Amino acid sequence: MALNVAQKLIKDHLVSGEMIPGKEISLSIDQTLTQDATGTMVMLELEAMEIERAKTEASAQYVDHNVIQEDSKNPDDHLFLESAAKRFGLYFSRPGNGVSHPVHMQRLAVPGRTLLGSDSHTCANGCMGMLAMGAGGIDVAMAIAGEPYYVKMPQIWGVKLTGELPDWVGAKDIILEFLRRHDVKGGVGKIIEYYGPGLEQLSAMDRHVIANMGAELGATATVFPSDGEVKRYLKSQGREDDWHEITADQEATYDIDEEIDLSTLVPMIAKPSSPGNVVPVTEVEGEEIYQSYVGSSANPGYSDFAIAANIVKGQQIASGVSFDINPTSRQMLTDLVENGHIASLLSSGARLHQAGCNGCIGMGQAPASGRNSLRTTPRNFPGRSGTREDSVFLCGPEVAAASALYGKITDPRTLNMNYPHVNEPDQPTVDFRLLEEPLALEDAKKTELHKGPNIASIPYMEPLPDNINVPVLLKVGDNFSTDEILAGGARVLPYRSNLPEISKFAFEILDEDYYNRSMDIREKTGHVIIGGTNYGQGSSREHAALAPRYLGLKVVIVKDFARIHLQNLINFGILPLTFADPRDFDQLEQGDTLELKNVRETIQDSKELTAVVKDKNKEIRVLHALSDRQVDIMLTGGLINWVKDRQQEKA
Amino acid sequence: MALNVAQKLIKDHLVSGEMIPGKEISLSIDQTLTQDATGTMVMLELEAMEIERAKTEASAQYVDHNVIQEDSKNPDDHLFLESAAKRFGLYFSRPGNGVSHPVHMQRLAVPGRTLLGSDSHTCANGCMGMLAMGAGGIDVAMAIAGEPYYVKMPQIWGVKLTGELPDWVGAKDIILEFLRRHDVKGGVGKIIEYYGPGLEQLSAMDRHVIANMGAELGATATVFPSDGEVKRYLKSQGREDDWHEITADQEATYDIDEEIDLSTLVPMIAKPSSPGNVVPVTEVEGEEIYQSYVGSSANPGYSDFAIAANIVKGQQIASGVSFDINPTSRQMLTDLVENGHIASLLSSGARLHQAGCNGCIGMGQAPASGRNSLRTTPRNFPGRSGTREDSVFLCGPEVAAASALYGKITDPRTLNMNYPHVNEPDQPTVDFRLLEEPLALEDAKKTELHKGPNIASIPYMEPLPDNINVPVLLKVGDNFSTDEILAGGARVLPYRSNLPEISKFAFEILDEDYYNRSMDIREKTGHVIIGGTNYGQGSSREHAALAPRYLGLKVVIVKDFARIHLQNLINFGILPLTFADPRDFDQLEQGDTLELKNVRETIQDSKELTAVVKDKNKEIRVLHALSDRQVDIMLTGGLINWVKDRQQEKA
Repeated sequence: MALNVAQKLIKDHLVSGEMIPGKEISLSIDQTLTQDATGTMVMLELEAMEIERAKTEASAQYVDHNVIQEDSKNPDDHLFLESAAKRFGLYFSRPGNGVSHPVHMQRLAVPGRTLLGSDSHTCANGCMGMLAMGAGGIDVAMAIAGEPYYVKMPQIWGVKLTGELPDWVGAKDIILEFLRRHDVKGGVGKIIEYYGPGLEQLSAMDRHVIANMGAELGATATVFPSDGEVKRYLKSQGREDDWHEITADQEATYDIDEEIDLSTLVPMIAKPSSPGNVVPVTEVEGEEIYQSYVGSSANPGYSDFAIAANIVKGQQIASGVSFDINPTSRQMLTDLVENGHIASLLSSGARLHQAGCNGCIGMGQAPASGRNSLRTTPRNFPGRSGTREDSVFLCGPEVAAASALYGKITDPRTLNMNYPHVNEPDQPTVDFRLLEEPLALEDAKKTELHKGPNIASIPYMEPLPDNINVPVLLKVGDNFSTDEILAGGARVLPYRSNLPEISKFAFEILDEDYYNRSMDIREKTGHVIIGGTNYGQGSSREHAALAPRYLGLKVVIVKDFARIHLQNLINFGILPLTFADPRDFDQLEQGDTLELKNVRETIQDSKELTAVVKDKNKEIRVLHALSDRQVDIMLTGGLINWVKDRQQEKA
Repeated sequence: MALNVAQKLIKDHLVSGEMIPGKEISLSIDQTLTQDATGTMVMLELEAMEIERAKTEASAQYVDHNVIQEDSKNPDDHLFLESAAKRFGLYFSRPGNGVSHPVHMQRLAVPGRTLLGSDSHTCANGCMGMLAMGAGGIDVAMAIAGEPYYVKMPQIWGVKLTGELPDWVGAKDIILEFLRRHDVKGGVGKIIEYYGPGLEQLSAMDRHVIANMGAELGATATVFPSDGEVKRYLKSQGREDDWHEITADQEATYDIDEEIDLSTLVPMIAKPSSPGNVVPVTEVEGEEIYQSYVGSSANPGYSDFAIAANIVKGQQIASGVSFDINPTSRQMLTDLVENGHIASLLSSGARLHQAGCNGCIGMGQAPASGRNSLRTTPRNFPGRSGTREDSVFLCGPEVAAASALYGKITDPRTLNMNYPHVNEPDQPTVDFRLLEEPLALEDAKKTELHKGPNIASIPYMEPLPDNINVPVLLKVGDNFSTDEILAGGARVLPYRSNLPEISKFAFEILDEDYYNRSMDIREKTGHVIIGGTNYGQGSSREHAALAPRYLGLKVVIVKDFARIHLQNLINFGILPLTFADPRDFDQLEQGDTLELKNVRETIQDSKELTAVVKDKNKEIRVLHALSDRQVDIMLTGGLINWVKDRQQEKA
């Protein structure tokens, strides 16, 4: 059977399941990527799983998100991550080396491999003929431990690129056009595969731009073939040997077909405050700006900066504009310096920031209140810039640079100049020191984890008890969100690597005393929480399961669960049950005590359990929907224990 | 009479007083400098004073402190400062242009002039044959309004430099040696004047290093002659016409005499946590470091970065070291880029940050907990780095770079290389756009102040009433500090430009209800506070007077005052009184009501007033120590009103 690129990649890594869209499959993972914001918890999970050494071909820990150091927390995290990378046999990219995605592409990306990363833009490396996917932290910890990744088989969406890109139109405009057509949910459950004659004009880094923002469509992944351009790119990075060709078979078909005629494209822009809110630049021309910002994993390439530099060269940006340059890797910054582009940018009035994610995730470069900010970043969700009432537009570097010159949104085609084509350096700097190599096993074993005062190991979690006898410590209504279970934000997030501390914030928005009550009976009995429908909606943050579990939450009984939080409850060994009769919700109140007997046996044999409401002489029927694998996980006390057992079995 | 340089500068600007050490003199101010952290309040004061236009020869508003933008507050401040600079006829240096002191030196410093700045390192421009002094914000506002600056005539401390600097020893080692000899209070009440044959080896920027850290000795100012080197420097900046010679007369003498034989110096280092804790580097050689940091106004010159670059060129810094480069001006960064030094630094593994103060004032680059940080910055007070339990060493760029290579404190003389002498570029970049010129008067008048949501005008303050009838709202003990009156720190400081908001924090450490009680009677009566001895000790922050004044504080009666807070109370029109008999302190309690009659007349005629304790049938004798000028200020309701009146009289 003729296969497209995505199908080939999946077939090569299929561990279980059938390649039928919508059916669960599991895939072996060759490479992983973690960044510092999510990586500390992944490393603590590896510690708790008692992993000896990464089982993957290559796993890399990057430091790119929290590189602004206003107190000791971020640098302490960096040292912890460095020690963990050494301990578990990972590559380590130190702060200042740059953003994970382009650095991974330079040093580790290999056509044909799978890459799982605890960052939603991991998909960017799909530009290299890889199957690259973003996932939750514990999914990546599992992959590092050698476990497969479970996902529903996506539909494959073939996008044929034809025609020739006009001057002043670039890769960013292609993906913005795609977002204009399909909006931010258009890619859910799909892999987007680009092919066709238009590919020839797109460098590997151009493809990175497009693959990166597949995340904004909600796509499972974006893939490009591994063709001559990928070969050229790998050669320029001194890694020609890592190349092999992967293209779709001649007769390959796609579940969905689409075409983009590049010759019809114009400079595009996403208006506030959604990446899907795309219009041609001409529609918003002339609006005054406070800021123009070039960089991030959505425009990380040498040419993205060089084109901006060529546009502003010899000129001065408008008074009052903050022209922020965020280099994406030290290696590329060195080339931009040596070829004069940084000098052009600085002389025009640019502010040059350290290499990293920075403003793209609200770490610096926040715009002034209510003023327009133009950015080459991938996202403009409200407040993501750090400014509560922000007004962020997304565009390519041509629009950003032209607008910086005039202080207002400017169609670069109106500039009085020829399109300043950029030649990438024939022999770019290749700095293998961007990634410190994994330690040899013997040295790794000797490495101790360096834990600053704000980093705490994940405590041991008990297996599921056979008899559960617990008070109802909280009862909540419908649509209770993970933000209410455990808030995000600057007050709470600094404790992301410190479970005992972050647990103090659990449910505090609803009930400030929950923490104290739960701590009182944490060791003795633990507790149960009762909820309504759509329990745990919203953010996917794992801490919303991990913190209550730490506080002794054993069972949650609700009308129904939000999908991701249900998964997180299972992952951390909290038994998720639903009322067989939703009206029983009204029978229960805070202070009741519930008893469930023979739980371990029952969940293996049946989907139904009985909860006795003590002192009320009532019985309630409750249900679980766990698969066999999930029952296994639940019995051992969650994924960490489950993996730990599997590691020992294999050893 | 033969004069030294300091005496010449003072004599040329003397408005009142005699040049006798210890006696108050007042000086006309030619230039001012404000930065963003202190500048917002200065600009609000100018607004409240109804200043039409700066009366100085040149006043410049810099944005260098708060250039990390994690939310809208800093960028909103930047826009406010830009609009205020336009409104009041100031130069404006936008974020990214660099640190005020070196940029001022490049563009505006003129030998023979006085410079007053709301930054303690304003003294750095003493390197240009100027009398440059740091001062409080309202002092600078007064200077911008054309008022003289009051200061006690300092002693002049002549420091003769002889001998020749050895290789690997630089300007930073000279000032560190001086701090080793005299510690952090050695310069109080003194101007340090350098002279002698050793000067010939010190470039203008080397002298900047030395003058800058005069602040660490507590000196009123540091002065250097305006000699051929200053001429060379001005010529290199395209400003040869601004030069004229100022040297000490042949027969000039000094109040204090000292000599430093440069040939005897070795690389020095200040250990944690005081700039006066200085030892030769050899004493701490081998201690492991987390960080090496090059930049700040204490080592701002081209050669400071170039020498570090030459030391690390072609090598790689030690694993685990954060090598942070903080450029100090965009102009100089451009030269460092074009001459290959930035490439050398980046290739070695450095992190390049935007031009600004950054880590020097705890804005980024905080070190990991308890780990050693080596910095070329001027201060290492505990916690200033942003990390609570920090361990910061101060040194020159040679020691910083050598230590980065080895990951431990390294005496650069042990490196296997010749001293890499740096030639400054013959024709450095000269970027006049670093400072936006003041607007013409007509355009300035039309400019409106741009106030973001967190910037609030200073409300009108009533003149001193004739009869004061106020409740005792608080009574505090001895040594009550300004930190207890109004805390600093990240929770409070973001409201520095918003008096109504920051006032909510007044006295809250002692009494959370003070704010509410004071607001209740703010309009009706106002209130009085009773205190013990040394009231208002500690930080000089003006908000500790301004916020209580906003809340209706009319009178403070204490056993005695700390010096700076007393001045601040007067500046903001709060009547500062002391008990004639300190035992009367015990007669008063919270809730009492005090009446003072005919206050306006009495303070003009006498040093003594009578306070009646109503309902207690008691009288207490209280004293004031106001000069005639201060009585004037008090009657009008504080300096802002006083200046406003003077402006109107002159108009």
